[in-house]
Amino acid sequence: MTSIAPGTAANRLLIADLENAVGKQNVVWKPEDLLLYEYDGSIDRAAPRVVVLPGSAQETAECVKVANRHDAFIVPRGAGTGLSGGAVPLRDSVVIGLSRLNRVLDVDVENRVAIVEPGLVNLELSNQVSKFGLYYAPDPSSQKACTIGGNVAENAGGPHCLALGTTTNHVLGLEVVLADGSLLWLGGPNRESTGYDLRGAFVGSEGTFGVVTKVAVRLLRIPEKIHTMLAAFTSLDAASQTVSDIIAAGLVPAALEMMDRVTIDACEPVYHPGYPADAEAVLIVELDGLTEAVTEQSALVETICHKNGASELREADDPAKRADLWATRKGAIGAFGTIAPSYYLVDGVVPRTKLRDVMRQVKAVGDELGLTIGNVFHAGDGNLHPCILFNERERDEVRKVIQAGERILEICVANGGALSGEHGIGIEKKAYMPLVFTEADMDAMKGLREAFLNPQPEDESGAGGGVATGRSATPVSERFNPGKIFPGGASHGEAYGITEHSVRRSRRGDEV
Amino acid sequence: MTSIAPGTAANRLLIADLENAVGKQNVVWKPEDLLLYEYDGSIDRAAPRVVVLPGSAQETAECVKVANRHDAFIVPRGAGTGLSGGAVPLRDSVVIGLSRLNRVLDVDVENRVAIVEPGLVNLELSNQVSKFGLYYAPDPSSQKACTIGGNVAENAGGPHCLALGTTTNHVLGLEVVLADGSLLWLGGPNRESTGYDLRGAFVGSEGTFGVVTKVAVRLLRIPEKIHTMLAAFTSLDAASQTVSDIIAAGLVPAALEMMDRVTIDACEPVYHPGYPADAEAVLIVELDGLTEAVTEQSALVETICHKNGASELREADDPAKRADLWATRKGAIGAFGTIAPSYYLVDGVVPRTKLRDVMRQVKAVGDELGLTIGNVFHAGDGNLHPCILFNERERDEVRKVIQAGERILEICVANGGALSGEHGIGIEKKAYMPLVFTEADMDAMKGLREAFLNPQPEDESGAGGGVATGRSATPVSERFNPGKIFPGGASHGEAYGITEHSVRRSRRGDEV
Repeated sequence: MTSIAPGTAANRLLIADLENAVGKQNVVWKPEDLLLYEYDGSIDRAAPRVVVLPGSAQETAECVKVANRHDAFIVPRGAGTGLSGGAVPLRDSVVIGLSRLNRVLDVDVENRVAIVEPGLVNLELSNQVSKFGLYYAPDPSSQKACTIGGNVAENAGGPHCLALGTTTNHVLGLEVVLADGSLLWLGGPNRESTGYDLRGAFVGSEGTFGVVTKVAVRLLRIPEKIHTMLAAFTSLDAASQTVSDIIAAGLVPAALEMMDRVTIDACEPVYHPGYPADAEAVLIVELDGLTEAVTEQSALVETICHKNGASELREADDPAKRADLWATRKGAIGAFGTIAPSYYLVDGVVPRTKLRDVMRQVKAVGDELGLTIGNVFHAGDGNLHPCILFNERERDEVRKVIQAGERILEICVANGGALSGEHGIGIEKKAYMPLVFTEADMDAMKGLREAFLNPQPEDESGAGGGVATGRSATPVSERFNPGKIFPGGASHGEAYGITEHSVRRSRRGDEV
Repeated sequence: MTSIAPGTAANRLLIADLENAVGKQNVVWKPEDLLLYEYDGSIDRAAPRVVVLPGSAQETAECVKVANRHDAFIVPRGAGTGLSGGAVPLRDSVVIGLSRLNRVLDVDVENRVAIVEPGLVNLELSNQVSKFGLYYAPDPSSQKACTIGGNVAENAGGPHCLALGTTTNHVLGLEVVLADGSLLWLGGPNRESTGYDLRGAFVGSEGTFGVVTKVAVRLLRIPEKIHTMLAAFTSLDAASQTVSDIIAAGLVPAALEMMDRVTIDACEPVYHPGYPADAEAVLIVELDGLTEAVTEQSALVETICHKNGASELREADDPAKRADLWATRKGAIGAFGTIAPSYYLVDGVVPRTKLRDVMRQVKAVGDELGLTIGNVFHAGDGNLHPCILFNERERDEVRKVIQAGERILEICVANGGALSGEHGIGIEKKAYMPLVFTEADMDAMKGLREAFLNPQPEDESGAGGGVATGRSATPVSERFNPGKIFPGGASHGEAYGITEHSVRRSRRGDEV
């Protein structure tokens, strides 16, 4: 598997075979066209060898077979909105772009199940089923652009996953292409399935097990009533206490989001929300369900907010006002551009009860290194998003940012947290896996990948046989999305962990 | 791996090594003592080679290593309440009984997480944390006896899993002993974890991947208000329509259970519930949450029941009255003994919207074969439990029961359903796996088992290595719980599917 420049004989043969599989117009190979596929939402980049856009599950399977014959790596790609480098094609890979597989194939209204293709945009699914009074729950902030297939790969979350869980809780089954080009359903349209949970193992595997070609998802009924509240507090501690009190009262809001002073300062000149001048933190609480229940719960949240000294409380009952309250939160990351030209977003999770302590420690890291850190995050489930603001032209500052990111992740882990809440490991965090996992842990994960990737010889009990039986090409553990998740290994010039390379530039409109 | 009678030299050496690992008093080897470990809740039986009762995770790991050295199969055992033969020790296995590992090790009240040992009885966990206002949600009807470890193995459900999901939704992490005797955590006490979901793959693997030694579970807050309603209907169709209407109204009751006329007839002389004489079906609906919400929802359920012609409606707001309404449902299976000496319980799942059709078809099967079939089941999630009543001394009737069981499962599958709602495959249903899964599907599952059982050689990418690296003994795919889940293979005289052998006798007090 050596790097082959476009235009070599080997590459021309690969391109011809792919064109044969999906049609000439669906293979992208000109260097200027390939540029579009070098990036995802992270700063990492790498040039694909060729991009192929299959129009069906069968064509996708055919592409995998062609890549196998040419002994090429494969990187599946959704909309490329991921934040950890998952869609960046390391090692001169064939990118299988799923943008043409974007249909809702079937909606079973009564049983509330839809079968969709992986390239379908997340929000588009909810839009298409809203006429039945249904919606799809997981709502990454990028939901206007990101795809269901990408959500499956990263087990994506979103503000509303507090009450309803992440993608894996809403995916009933997956049709996938495995390493040998075979098509297989894992799980199915039923809520309960039988046998080992291969579906569960596949969700969140960051494109390293195979290519998703169909997804059976659970739909939910649109709530009768949605009530959104925004409360401003004069201290971060008061806002954190409010979060704890809401949870302690037995409420599970549909969303529970927080923004700190740095974030508020960044947002005021952009969105003019007009928060109180002394606001140190703003909380968004969204409740949904039957009208009476929401009314009762809203009153309880109000009481808790006032008890903790909320200086202002705004409420919204209709879609327009609700969008207004959410606008600042959803655009917050983009607004950091008003403070500094660049930011680096750290995605860590801590136990909810450690939020206040961890935020103090994060602030201390910033103070010590002379860096401004904005916090805008899913408070309800302890998913922090500290954004370190800086100027990437100042080399000295960049080194400090890398140091701060590392220290913040260490703080999360030391407080019983995890490396990633919802953005995956990808390239960006692979060097940090040993902070949380032992060699044995990672061997266990690699063993799972082996099960999907490499067929096993029959053993004496007659029970052998990997997932991808019948493959003829050399077994390659990193056939799909090579160089991701695990530290080290032969990679293709990508950054080893957080380097200057993986510090993301601030772009207006970015959403997290 | 040949069968070795207790008392042979090889067995004496194995016993001595196990006694060395856990102490003489914790190894059971006398034939009369081993009798207790031949059964579980199914009719299948097989004698263990020896039973060992470790007192810690380390001792459990030591037992696995000893079994490896003696090239013996291993069967983990909880309380033996399973209904599909999962704990029956085929192939002359060493049974690792987990009854001594029954402690609650840690309760993190604020984050609502407990670390428990696998031998802890399900209900005991809720009892121990109730002082903190918390409980553990999955509630198999056997919850007074079954263990958390057994629940993990079978991904157990229960009446209250309609709203809250099965065991896998409540297990955050597992400490397990793998095939090489190493101890490993899969997942952890955090809600969100990183890397592949090995925890998810392990839950529901029916003891075939390894032995669970610790479980991190999510606890829930005890609801402010619980309201239970029981409604009698003059037709099964009216009761089924009520179920559909409740779900269509956007309600997700904590439980939604149904009993048919046959079940009512069985229960009247035992529990004297005094249902109306013309009742053809009885429905139990339980709602929980904040008081106002429950009150509103109860009113809605009442309206729906009346609209569908409910002839009687009973309600309960306190624990004593609630237990009263539940008594018949929870004891229903046992009451079948008043109608016939034996029953065979079929555990299948169908899409909720197909319930009415499928129940008619089930009845038709009974009518055609001259068999009485009682239905008592989780209506809310389409988990049927048709109980075929018969006399096991009538050989002709037994053959018809086997035929009926087969036809009912075929009906479930033909209606888009699954083989098992919550009792697993085990021995009982393994012959039926091909009804739902292709060879490729089952190869995929076996591949997953390989990943946990057999280490892989390093491949050229340096990313090889199975879960159980470092094992020295021969790789054996069926090291743990041999002869289960997959059809065929070398087994130890167990029934191939539903045979006369796997028809369960009716015993008073059985709960499903």
